[in-house]
Amino acid sequence: MTEMQPARTCLAIVLAAGEGTRMKSARPKVLHEVAGRSLLGHVLAAVTTAGADALAVVIGPDRPDVAAEVRKHAPHAAVFIQSERKGTAHAVLAARESLAGKHDDVLVAFADTPLVRPETFADLRKALHGGVGVAALGFEAKDPAGYGRFVTQDGALHAIVEHKDADEATRRITLCNAGLMALNGHKALAILDAIGCANAQNEYYLTDAVAVARAQGLKTVARVAPEAEVQGVNDRVQLAAVEADFQRRKRLEAMLAGATLIAPETVFFSHDTVIGRDVLIEPNVVFGPGVKVADNAVIHAFSHLEGASVGSSASIGPYARLRPGAELAKGARVGNFVEIKAAAIGEGAKVNHLTYIGDAEIGANANIGAGTITCNYDGFVKSRTIIGEGAFVGSNSALVAPVTIGAGAYVGSGSVITRDVKPDALAVARGRQMEREGWASAFRAAAQARKARQ
Amino acid sequence: MTEMQPARTCLAIVLAAGEGTRMKSARPKVLHEVAGRSLLGHVLAAVTTAGADALAVVIGPDRPDVAAEVRKHAPHAAVFIQSERKGTAHAVLAARESLAGKHDDVLVAFADTPLVRPETFADLRKALHGGVGVAALGFEAKDPAGYGRFVTQDGALHAIVEHKDADEATRRITLCNAGLMALNGHKALAILDAIGCANAQNEYYLTDAVAVARAQGLKTVARVAPEAEVQGVNDRVQLAAVEADFQRRKRLEAMLAGATLIAPETVFFSHDTVIGRDVLIEPNVVFGPGVKVADNAVIHAFSHLEGASVGSSASIGPYARLRPGAELAKGARVGNFVEIKAAAIGEGAKVNHLTYIGDAEIGANANIGAGTITCNYDGFVKSRTIIGEGAFVGSNSALVAPVTIGAGAYVGSGSVITRDVKPDALAVARGRQMEREGWASAFRAAAQARKARQ
Amino acid sequence: MTEMQPARTCLAIVLAAGEGTRMKSARPKVLHEVAGRSLLGHVLAAVTTAGADALAVVIGPDRPDVAAEVRKHAPHAAVFIQSERKGTAHAVLAARESLAGKHDDVLVAFADTPLVRPETFADLRKALHGGVGVAALGFEAKDPAGYGRFVTQDGALHAIVEHKDADEATRRITLCNAGLMALNGHKALAILDAIGCANAQNEYYLTDAVAVARAQGLKTVARVAPEAEVQGVNDRVQLAAVEADFQRRKRLEAMLAGATLIAPETVFFSHDTVIGRDVLIEPNVVFGPGVKVADNAVIHAFSHLEGASVGSSASIGPYARLRPGAELAKGARVGNFVEIKAAAIGEGAKVNHLTYIGDAEIGANANIGAGTITCNYDGFVKSRTIIGEGAFVGSNSALVAPVTIGAGAYVGSGSVITRDVKPDALAVARGRQMEREGWASAFRAAAQARKARQ
Repeated sequence: MTEMQPARTCLAIVLAAGEGTRMKSARPKVLHEVAGRSLLGHVLAAVTTAGADALAVVIGPDRPDVAAEVRKHAPHAAVFIQSERKGTAHAVLAARESLAGKHDDVLVAFADTPLVRPETFADLRKALHGGVGVAALGFEAKDPAGYGRFVTQDGALHAIVEHKDADEATRRITLCNAGLMALNGHKALAILDAIGCANAQNEYYLTDAVAVARAQGLKTVARVAPEAEVQGVNDRVQLAAVEADFQRRKRLEAMLAGATLIAPETVFFSHDTVIGRDVLIEPNVVFGPGVKVADNAVIHAFSHLEGASVGSSASIGPYARLRPGAELAKGARVGNFVEIKAAAIGEGAKVNHLTYIGDAEIGANANIGAGTITCNYDGFVKSRTIIGEGAFVGSNSALVAPVTIGAGAYVGSGSVITRDVKPDALAVARGRQMEREGWASAFRAAAQARKARQ
Repeated sequence: MTEMQPARTCLAIVLAAGEGTRMKSARPKVLHEVAGRSLLGHVLAAVTTAGADALAVVIGPDRPDVAAEVRKHAPHAAVFIQSERKGTAHAVLAARESLAGKHDDVLVAFADTPLVRPETFADLRKALHGGVGVAALGFEAKDPAGYGRFVTQDGALHAIVEHKDADEATRRITLCNAGLMALNGHKALAILDAIGCANAQNEYYLTDAVAVARAQGLKTVARVAPEAEVQGVNDRVQLAAVEADFQRRKRLEAMLAGATLIAPETVFFSHDTVIGRDVLIEPNVVFGPGVKVADNAVIHAFSHLEGASVGSSASIGPYARLRPGAELAKGARVGNFVEIKAAAIGEGAKVNHLTYIGDAEIGANANIGAGTITCNYDGFVKSRTIIGEGAFVGSNSALVAPVTIGAGAYVGSGSVITRDVKPDALAVARGRQMEREGWASAFRAAAQARKARQ
Repeated sequence: MTEMQPARTCLAIVLAAGEGTRMKSARPKVLHEVAGRSLLGHVLAAVTTAGADALAVVIGPDRPDVAAEVRKHAPHAAVFIQSERKGTAHAVLAARESLAGKHDDVLVAFADTPLVRPETFADLRKALHGGVGVAALGFEAKDPAGYGRFVTQDGALHAIVEHKDADEATRRITLCNAGLMALNGHKALAILDAIGCANAQNEYYLTDAVAVARAQGLKTVARVAPEAEVQGVNDRVQLAAVEADFQRRKRLEAMLAGATLIAPETVFFSHDTVIGRDVLIEPNVVFGPGVKVADNAVIHAFSHLEGASVGSSASIGPYARLRPGAELAKGARVGNFVEIKAAAIGEGAKVNHLTYIGDAEIGANANIGAGTITCNYDGFVKSRTIIGEGAFVGSNSALVAPVTIGAGAYVGSGSVITRDVKPDALAVARGRQMEREGWASAFRAAAQARKARQ
């Protein structure tokens, strides 16, 4: 991170009113997710990290879901409704009340460009130093057609010209408008109010802030970000492209920090995944939100983790599913076709095969046999299973909660345990084995005769 | 789709006699599959959609498997055997009997180029309008070496020149022969019969149809398709490349129609997969043939579906396997490590963990506990399990079919149910729990002593 | 493979002393793995295949783990410790004792460039023929900045100039130093001993061997390899890049040899995976070390294999995990959510769903029902389960080892089998089914009343 300028106050206005019809979704565009967090959530997080101490979010009418998402990420943010669609400057002015607060810096961000890094917002704020009225963010476009062009001279930004208004020479410019802007907070309202709508669409364009500021005698400058960082989301193909770029960034971070990803392109992180050093991640692993993996842990192939913590030197998978509340202590092992939910697995404990552990505590060094099921739900309430240190639960057992297996106790394979088991005791609950000689050959003969008759 | 010209009749001749030795396979090349359908099946479907009302398929000798594949996709197609390999025109003439039918249009397609779209075939037919004798399909080749070149002038196609017969100037042409052709059906036989074999290989080349038609005073024209669309399959690397292109096409369609694919490159569709709007597909999902997913459904990571239907707002996975005949009603949930086969899962019913449901009906809002197994097979016949609405099956139960669990009934965890259970009744079938105090510590002591002695 | 020159003796010196701090790992760089084998292991295998009959490995001080890895791959290799870091020539001279053996050829290889093929090493040796003193390996660099440049003339290598010592003209050279070298074994010591350290770093550079050899009147030549083949590993991003290139190579080999990989980019091989002809591999399959798959086998999606053999026409997965010692005979089937460990599955036997088979033998044509668990571990020892030919094990059974199920025997669903079952007998071991009418509705009413009170 670059320096965050704590001395200056900053208002970030996030425009989140776009309808996103090309998403073809009942859900508003800014609530679609990248790496387990909404587009809006990404932008709110980035401007906050960049030092915005006040937030204003402009949303469309009748969007309680968007307002709720704002509150979830930024409880103190002011929410404004843009009732009519009259352009980006008009949208920013929907937050007029917040603008009147005279913050030192004003950042304008779009809720559908979720990859802009906090550092980029911070650099844009820094660009305001020295009497600059407007700092706008541009990018070098591979294919500039359709974008507004930055007309620059000696570092100064002279104007932003829309593609359709651009002459041939201007169209050859490849430095394009990313949309983001920082304004001097003490001049912002004066600039924005001076923007007119004398154009083909009769809309108030935020891009005109550059020309207006210059007309008011203020300096205007450009800053440049990589094209990938400022890409926006308008349909699901672009959503997938943004997700892919986010994943590339997270994978690179994890590898450079000392984790091995055998096939990084097959590992999907959440926005908040934390991976320790010398962690090994095999191919095809999916992280939902809220996962921490400590040093030296191994995540085998085909594992799926969400809201879980994996202790140091623990090993999970292949085919392990850790659901929210799964907490594996140091050296714990969770094997194939095992689901862990809201359960603490003690140090060195093993849950290796075909098991469901829910609402439970497994003591250190306990061994849970293949096919064990904690029966934690009776159709109405969930109950807990407690398994003591060093206990051994035989394969294919059902533990009917609430139930406690004492430390060092032993449950015979195939048992259905409905009552607590004392420490160091053996519990068995299964039927007696009976045998009928010759039955199988007689059964086969009869079955084959039936088939023959058909 | 472009307009399909219903007024004109059309014969499509599909050449499927190639041996495909570079596939290094016991299976003929055209039976290898892309997206769950044979190469041949793709081509038969495309020409049919393009309006071919008569089909002739030319296959190699001793290929009952290829003939069977033709019948499977096009029961009314005529099948001809090319006994000798004397070139592509010779192969087309193996279908002489069909050609004599005097269809308005004749399409010639190759069974090893499965990505050609129906629209492309239809455009080729349209190109025949206005007295054109032959319309041939070309593509702009990135690397034209080895391909026949299209010599064109003012939109007309003058000739197709094989690479080895081409002079330097002709070799600089990048518009290459894709192989596909449309011929005026009333002239086709006359054109084809006039093709000679006075060339190095002594073969009858279909490409010579252009020169022959011009010699007969007919117009000949070229149409152009993207290179990716006309790529052929000669080895397994090319088979994988064609599969990859097909998948890209399907993923793009699904996303633009309103489904979210978090990592589109990890989702594998079948040729006939149908995905609704606002469906969310997590990374690593594989669709076999015959799957429909309704609106708002969620397909979690690592799921595998084949011959299944997923109702609206239903949720499956992670690690769900739906096999043929799995039908999930609205809001049904199928969770991790669960296999569903030939079973209807009612509205809002839950089958969440480590379960096998086969040959069954699960009523609405029923809850099937973790580790439940329908024992549907006795080694000879498969029997059905019926579970009523709102029933609750405790974890780790075995339901021995044929068996019916009444509506609202309750099966105790760990039970082996062999007889029907009445509605609203409780059924339990498990052993009694017995305990021996201190057994486990004694067992451990003995085992450790044994180990020490070894 | 090119010809291996058996007539000449060859010493390979492998430099494995690099610390690899950019790996950010407690493990030394050369022990990190690609395709299930350490970087060092790859290089030792390649030089051995290229005909090196003597090996010397130079490692850093206090690295018993690296020394152990050398012994594992090359028990007869001499291990030398480079105590001080004084450059690559100094490192090579740490193996002075081996060099004194006067082998015909000396190869110098780096343990962190694991993709160099045996053929490339062999070609470098061949380049020594005809009185050549030093043959160095170069590559055409996309971005040569930072690399040493090969100054060549008429095929001869005049010098290797380090980037920082290069003038503008030399920096325009794109043929760069890959580091690998072959030296005439009878001149090698004289050359290496003549290398000085009169440079900015005061280090002894192996690259100076070229100039020294020329000064001694010897010929020096360059050979060229593709850049991808000579890429080195310095951090985990490069480790992943090397893994990706290795995988591409293996996938291509498998496809060209006659296996179908539907989505090759999702199949991860080990360095030693052996795949037969007409094998079909669905998307998302991971191979650990030691796997052989015979002709016509099908590996369905999401399967994970390690140390296993899959017989011809066998079928595994989706979601099958074969662990070390899994041996599937011809036509055996292992289905979804099944784990097999140290077990032989007989011809035509089926283990189709949610099962754990460990330390077992399953006879031909036996059928193991869904949810079967072999209880092979009592907390101290592992015991074996033997299932005879044609036996039928009902679903959700637990087989408590040691136990034998006779040929043709039948185990009732949900049984816990603790004693041997005779051939052709029926064994059942489960509780009796009891029913309480109306219990479930009463339970629900009570539970709902409790909820209402809360």
